[in-house]
Parts: sequence; C-alpha cells; structure tokens
Amino acid sequence: MRALTIDESGLKLRRDYPKPDRADGESLVRVTMAGICGTDLELARGYMGYRGVPGHEFVGIVEQSGSPGLVGQRVVGEINAACGRCDFCRTDFGRHCPNRTVLGILGRDGAFADYLALPDRNLLFVPDSVPDEVAAFTEPVAAAYEIFEQVNFAASDKILVLGDGRLGAVVALVLYAAGLNPVVAGHHRIKLDRLSALGLKVELEEKLKPAFDCVVDCTGGPQGFLRSVELVRPRGKLILKSTAAGNHALNLAPVVINELTVVGSRCGRFEPALKALADGTVDPRPLVSGRYPFDDALAAFASARDSSNFKCLLQIA
Amino acid sequence: MRALTIDESGLKLRRDYPKPDRADGESLVRVTMAGICGTDLELARGYMGYRGVPGHEFVGIVEQSGSPGLVGQRVVGEINAACGRCDFCRTDFGRHCPNRTVLGILGRDGAFADYLALPDRNLLFVPDSVPDEVAAFTEPVAAAYEIFEQVNFAASDKILVLGDGRLGAVVALVLYAAGLNPVVAGHHRIKLDRLSALGLKVELEEKLKPAFDCVVDCTGGPQGFLRSVELVRPRGKLILKSTAAGNHALNLAPVVINELTVVGSRCGRFEPALKALADGTVDPRPLVSGRYPFDDALAAFASARDSSNFKCLLQIA
Repeated sequence: MRALTIDESGLKLRRDYPKPDRADGESLVRVTMAGICGTDLELARGYMGYRGVPGHEFVGIVEQSGSPGLVGQRVVGEINAACGRCDFCRTDFGRHCPNRTVLGILGRDGAFADYLALPDRNLLFVPDSVPDEVAAFTEPVAAAYEIFEQVNFAASDKILVLGDGRLGAVVALVLYAAGLNPVVAGHHRIKLDRLSALGLKVELEEKLKPAFDCVVDCTGGPQGFLRSVELVRPRGKLILKSTAAGNHALNLAPVVINELTVVGSRCGRFEPALKALADGTVDPRPLVSGRYPFDDALAAFASARDSSNFKCLLQIA
Repeated sequence: MRALTIDESGLKLRRDYPKPDRADGESLVRVTMAGICGTDLELARGYMGYRGVPGHEFVGIVEQSGSPGLVGQRVVGEINAACGRCDFCRTDFGRHCPNRTVLGILGRDGAFADYLALPDRNLLFVPDSVPDEVAAFTEPVAAAYEIFEQVNFAASDKILVLGDGRLGAVVALVLYAAGLNPVVAGHHRIKLDRLSALGLKVELEEKLKPAFDCVVDCTGGPQGFLRSVELVRPRGKLILKSTAAGNHALNLAPVVINELTVVGSRCGRFEPALKALADGTVDPRPLVSGRYPFDDALAAFASARDSSNFKCLLQIA
C-alpha cells in the first residue's frame, strides 16, 4: 500500500509499504481523508524519535473487523490504543494507559497511508450527513473539548487563545461555540482576518495587554509559555494545549508568586466532538487551507509548514 | 535600632539603622522573635536584588498605632501590605495586589530588626497561651494552609511532600494535621528520622517510586520540579510551594502529555494558621533547630544554611 513514512532521512512517500496487521479486537480501516497536525510536523523533524507512518486525524471505511457490524461503516477513531486492563483503563482514562500505543505517534503506524489498524472499541460511526472534510477534524476538536473536562469557565471570563495556528483556531471555535468569547492572538494578520470573519475577537500578539483570567497556549513553542505567564492575571489559569519538545530556559517563579494554575491538556473524548460536528455547533470547514491528493503528500506537508495556512487535508481514497 | 541588612556586600548586622516610619493606618511593632526562611537565604544571595532588612516570620508587641486598641498587644502580621483599593483588594486577595509591598521581601523593611511597620489591618492578636516560638511559625503554617484554598484532596490520595527542609516539614505537618497521610521525602536521614518521630511517613528521595496523586514540591530548586513530574501520576497534581529563582532548563512536554495540573502556591491567610497553632492542631516546636540572640544573627543564618537543620529562630527582644 501507499504510506508516508518517517525514517532517519525524513519524510518519504512509499508505494510498497506493508498493510498493517490487524490484531484480535482490531479493525482494518481504509483511510479516505486525513489532516496534518503540528505534531506530525514535529515528528517529521525528529520529535520523539518516531519511525513509521505518522497521521492521527482521519476518517475512513472499515474493511475488515472481528466485529461484523463494523465492516463497511464510515468511522473516525480515538488515537490511544489502551490495554483495557490497567487502573487508568478501568476508570475510563485509556488516554493515559501506560501500556498504550498511539496512532501515528507512539508504537503504531498512523493514518497517512491507505490503511490503518485500530481497536474496534476506538471507532465511532460517522453520520452520513457529516462530510469527510468535517469528520477529519474530530480529533483536534476532541482535543479542544478536553479543556471543558479539566477547567470550569465563567461566562464573564476573559479568555485568550495564544497562537493563530490550526490548533489555536480550532480551540477558539470550540470555546466560541460553547458561548464563551475568547480573543485569539497571533502574528499573522491574514489568519487573524479569517478568524475575525468567523465572529471571533482577534488581536495581534504584540498588542496584547494583561490581564486575562485564562490563557490557552496553542503556540507550540516555549515562548508561548513565557508570554502566557505575562498575560494571565494572578490566580489565573494557563492551559497548555501544545507541547514544545525538549528543554527550554524557563522561570517558574511567576507561577508560584502569582499562584497560577497550569493545566496540561492533550487528547479528548471523541463523542462530544463528533456530536458538535454533526449538529453544526462547530463547523471547521473555513479552516481548510488546502486539499491534496495523497500522491502530493510531500507538497501538502510543505504547505502545512507555511505559517499562513491553517489545516491541510490529504485526500487518500 | 539594630537591624540585619542586605546590601551589595551581603548580610550585615547594623546598630544604627533608622526605625521604620509608621504611615497612616500602620502600627510600629517591637519584634520579639523572628524565624529564618529559605526566602531570606535566597534574598541574602541576591534574589530579586533586594536591599534593606529581610525577615517576614515574626511575633512582636505593638508600640505605636493609630488604632489605640492595638497598642501593647502581642501580634503576628500578614506580610503583604496591599493598597486596599484595587480589584484584588476588593475581592479579599490583597496578597496579589499589584501595588503591594511585602514585609522583608519587596519594598518594605522586614522583621530582622528591633522594629517593623505594618498596616493595622494586617495584624492579628496572639492568644496568651501561644508562646513566641509557636507564634513565629504563623506565616509558614499559613503558607501551608494556602494549599487547602487551592486544591481539594481525597482522604485516600497518595500525597508526596518533596523536600525535607523547613518548608517541607511544615507542609507535611499541616497535611497530617488535616487527616491526610503524606510521605515526606528528602536526602537527609537525620531530618527524616526527626519527622518520622512526629508520626509522618518518610522516605529517602532516591528510593521514591511513581505514582503519587499529588506531589508538593518544597525543594526550593529546579530539580524539584523535574523530579515531581516524574513522580506524579497522569492527571495528577503538582503543587509548587517553593520558588527557584531564575531560568532553568525545563521540559513542559510531560505536563501536557500526562495532563498534569500544576498549582503555584505562595502566602496564605493567617487566621486558620493561628487557630491551628493556638488549639494545638499543629505544633511546630519539634522543628526548632536553634534559638539565637539577635546579636548572633549572622551565626543563625549560617546555621539556617546548614541543611541538617530545620527552623532557626532569632530572639530579638
């Protein structure tokens, strides 16, 4: 099958990559569409030493499964394949299972390929009314909904989404859909204008002034943490939504002096995200900056690296 | 008056230091006893560029005040002198007033002197039954009680207090007094044995194994944060109780990946602390490692720097 792979020499589009083995309890999914995320760009740069097929935002059709009801169904899939037996799994937190593999990120080939394998229990049916380019956003929208599992907001909270990239845009849309009124800030006038046209309040990053009740750091870089600490009020909340790989020179003293609460936030449950996409509460289509045939995957990655773009999608089947 | 001062050349005991001016709404307090804290040792090393008199843990007698009821009373005092007019002050969070001075830490001479000045509203009467060496612990005990204002614990929570210094010991005693069962860990067998004799569970730091529901970092150093991140479970809480001045090479990726909640925690309200000291819920006297006449203040600082000691007290009057 075709697969985009990462090895020592970087990204490569291969045509002879073996189809994934489907273990007991797993389904083989023919990927129809997949989205490129900042994590994929990081993995391609060597983050976590990942080797194999990246990609974890997808929609596809089940071709083989031990569960006959799944075959032929259009599905999206939660990306953490958990053991099902540990304390985390028993309390419905398989996303933190220490024995987990993660689709396209950790120990399991991902979605930038003709086929992927995931446990049956990870798969959710996609209603016919939801087009592929919307369903492909389920994973990042779920990651945004994760914030509501971790933090309570007041309607009057002054919320800043720091970072005008694909993640910041999705987070801002989800907060806005929940009746909150976040400011999105970044360095790219062109993207801020697009977000403004969606009803969001926007601001150039260098014009921001303290103090926000909550800052959601979606910058993907260590400077985002430092800037967030400057912009949040004492006793405020700082939600770290993106990871910055490696060590960086950071000063935690302001976290203590201002008694900040810093909340790390990663993957979320798919169910509320898919519901919001299906009923139109969240419509991510204005964030699509390009659709690329899979054979042009390397060009799609180049486009995803262009900071004037939001989401680039791969049309795989 | 006598005062211990910090200037470019470090700590100095002076005999000719001017008495503090008492502003409107403030009292002049004759300090009887004061405790040396890790922050004082940091300030003496140059932290925050502090110049003046350090010291913020004290008990004393009011000598002059615009409030006649205060004169002659034995008092302790909250260390943040707030403006009383800003949003933080209006919501009872003067500890975060942006216009505040802080006794012996920021813009206000402190307690290692014959006299100090504080706003009348900062002062709390000390019951006669509470000896000076207990009352002098009100500030650090209040800082420990602050944790309960910020974090909810379950009785079954596995809690680690990382750091067997004076702050870790006080935090552990306060958690224990609240019916929790923390493990205190550090590098000093002699101090761990003393804490064990008080009923606390103790462990050598290098023998610790994950995973704790909550880690309270009382180490005062950047390695404490890194070690805490290793020891807390996914979705667990990390309470930063001590500051490490300056920038350090830190990796926040595990905070995001494991969805940790990091809570900065600083000063607390004196009222619950003084109550716990007065009714014997918390008895800090086993933590006194030495009492020094004020004229031996430099020797007391040397002793406080000795990591085999807990709290060193200065007998000032």
